[in-house]
Amino acid sequence: MKIAAKEIWAALGEIRQKAPVVHNITNYVVMNNTANALLALGASPVMAHAEEEMEEMVAIASALVINIGTLSPAWVRSMFAAAEGARKRRIPIVLDPVGAGATAYRTRTARELIRAIPPDIIRGNGSEIMALLEKDARTKGVDSGASSDVAVAVGRKLHDLCGAAVCISGETDYTIGRGGIFRGRNGHLLMTRVTGLGCTATALCGAFATVMADPAEAAAAAMAVMGIAGEIGVSRSAGPGSLQVQFLDALYRLSAEEIEQRLQLEMEP
Amino acid sequence: MKIAAKEIWAALGEIRQKAPVVHNITNYVVMNNTANALLALGASPVMAHAEEEMEEMVAIASALVINIGTLSPAWVRSMFAAAEGARKRRIPIVLDPVGAGATAYRTRTARELIRAIPPDIIRGNGSEIMALLEKDARTKGVDSGASSDVAVAVGRKLHDLCGAAVCISGETDYTIGRGGIFRGRNGHLLMTRVTGLGCTATALCGAFATVMADPAEAAAAAMAVMGIAGEIGVSRSAGPGSLQVQFLDALYRLSAEEIEQRLQLEMEP
Amino acid sequence: MKIAAKEIWAALGEIRQKAPVVHNITNYVVMNNTANALLALGASPVMAHAEEEMEEMVAIASALVINIGTLSPAWVRSMFAAAEGARKRRIPIVLDPVGAGATAYRTRTARELIRAIPPDIIRGNGSEIMALLEKDARTKGVDSGASSDVAVAVGRKLHDLCGAAVCISGETDYTIGRGGIFRGRNGHLLMTRVTGLGCTATALCGAFATVMADPAEAAAAAMAVMGIAGEIGVSRSAGPGSLQVQFLDALYRLSAEEIEQRLQLEMEP
Repeated sequence: MKIAAKEIWAALGEIRQKAPVVHNITNYVVMNNTANALLALGASPVMAHAEEEMEEMVAIASALVINIGTLSPAWVRSMFAAAEGARKRRIPIVLDPVGAGATAYRTRTARELIRAIPPDIIRGNGSEIMALLEKDARTKGVDSGASSDVAVAVGRKLHDLCGAAVCISGETDYTIGRGGIFRGRNGHLLMTRVTGLGCTATALCGAFATVMADPAEAAAAAMAVMGIAGEIGVSRSAGPGSLQVQFLDALYRLSAEEIEQRLQLEMEP
Repeated sequence: MKIAAKEIWAALGEIRQKAPVVHNITNYVVMNNTANALLALGASPVMAHAEEEMEEMVAIASALVINIGTLSPAWVRSMFAAAEGARKRRIPIVLDPVGAGATAYRTRTARELIRAIPPDIIRGNGSEIMALLEKDARTKGVDSGASSDVAVAVGRKLHDLCGAAVCISGETDYTIGRGGIFRGRNGHLLMTRVTGLGCTATALCGAFATVMADPAEAAAAAMAVMGIAGEIGVSRSAGPGSLQVQFLDALYRLSAEEIEQRLQLEMEP
Repeated sequence: MKIAAKEIWAALGEIRQKAPVVHNITNYVVMNNTANALLALGASPVMAHAEEEMEEMVAIASALVINIGTLSPAWVRSMFAAAEGARKRRIPIVLDPVGAGATAYRTRTARELIRAIPPDIIRGNGSEIMALLEKDARTKGVDSGASSDVAVAVGRKLHDLCGAAVCISGETDYTIGRGGIFRGRNGHLLMTRVTGLGCTATALCGAFATVMADPAEAAAAAMAVMGIAGEIGVSRSAGPGSLQVQFLDALYRLSAEEIEQRLQLEMEP
């Protein structure tokens, strides 16, 4: 398990060439942005949540992304149905436990999904990841109350228990996989002032998992691309409004040179 | 049935002056963008889907736009209720069969809507239009797998069967109506990298149908305005992020000269 | 009850420093924008509507914002549950009666909410505020058919009946509270061509209510900040597309000087 700029560039090129269908069951707040980020990346987003069509929709997808940001009983049923369909078809499943720890409903749903159909990648902030295992984890709304560093130990435990690559985003992004741990340092603080960029990162994990065999590598690559496009976006922005625009433009135009020059990704076994 | 730049300009002027209420039952992904595009055009969007208020809401509208992008049983009931209300009040109905062909639920819902209350305009990509009639049409997610050209024969058949103006968007936009077929060539490939611009086009069809008597003319005019604003937007954009912004600005500021200079619309009987 | 630029600046500073959690049950159309505006302001938005988690979610919030823009029976139940939770915890409640007057369902829901758990602030356009009391108020879709001036008398009556600060937005924003009436004149007509800026204003009322004790002062301050950021945004925009972007940037960067120079807020007992 090793990952360099040229591998990320190759994976991005493959996404742009194949335009893999990524099926998202995600929250109302970020649907539009997530779809736009997947399009800017080069993937083909599908946003669909009706129980009546889960099996068929996941059957045309190359990855499934489940985000629990706005739940309801019907959507939870769809999440389980889609996850079962994805597991049968052996396409990668990515889970974003948005707000786990903030309410029992979210914590329980995320844990049940993990137990029933272990995802290939779980991506969240420190508080959310901790809430998946710890009883006393506290989440301040949907923002993280725990530093990524503190959550890494819990992330390792979660990885050991369910086998998923566990990606904990924050100032440093940690991705724990079979071969060790990735530490990514791309990104910018202003990105936390745009809603749903965490959810976007999760969706990008899904896209990269369609072209990279190792889930931890896919997640680390997605976080790096996310962070690099964000940094370029920030450098052209006067605030969070223009960052949304510049981020998508940067993602769409991302070049091998930009990845090469900006990538900050280390791996240790 | 003929349509020139000055007629499109006159229709746009009438929309800007009257600000007609366009009632949209549309998907979660594009609601915000659709509303913003209708506002930029000069119309008054209403986005409402609750069964409890369909009859009253459609009663204050000058057009109804139904988009099946994110379905659920309750929403389907609202779509039928709104369509019945619109038919009674003789206001134009526009249908966007998003993702028809991708799942049986979408295909069936779109077909049932067409059968129960034939819309005045149906707008979709080639795959979606084909799925409304053909058994073997395949849709790659919600993006088109069929070229517009191939779908035209099916579009003619659909028009003959249900009477609706059938608009098939793609590199060339075909609009089939009572008097013949419009071929529009405005637009730009980058527009396919912004989610929901097809849905926006459908909503604009609704706005133009409030001021133009012939549905095919209204659809062709809407597609032309859409494509021209898109071209202007692309000329000022560095990617799909800025295109979203520039498209709305261009739509808001669209001038007679811009329409005159850029319009590429032919009609044959 | 008096309010000057330096008090608004102090309140904004406190929001930026404390990042209060504002729980929003709002409509699908504006969720993303509302969250982004709260983030740009410096608050921590939570967008959650599931009955299953209302009690817990409101328990981590410092204010509750209820917006009836897209209703369904399940959401109405959540609105009541959240409002009860907020009342018990004595955090401010803000209500936006979007489209009241347009359909009986909206009018009834807004009135029942006000009766059951009187909010601290009610913010709407003239038609919506009038519909909360008057039988014959007419709303043109979700846009106002009544001038703010006409609605002020009704607003006073509503304030007397339920005790809420009543904010009527329009060319002049009127906020009626215990101590008298605020007249704010910040803002720009182009803001009405961006969907959901009214909803955003309501959410900002919630954020200011977490740091200002008097609800009318909080609402007047929120409307002023909204209007000033809008004016700055318009001055840097070529249309409603760029206004969305520039508004968020201006809100994020808003300075004491900008507030001082642009504030147009009068108060009379």
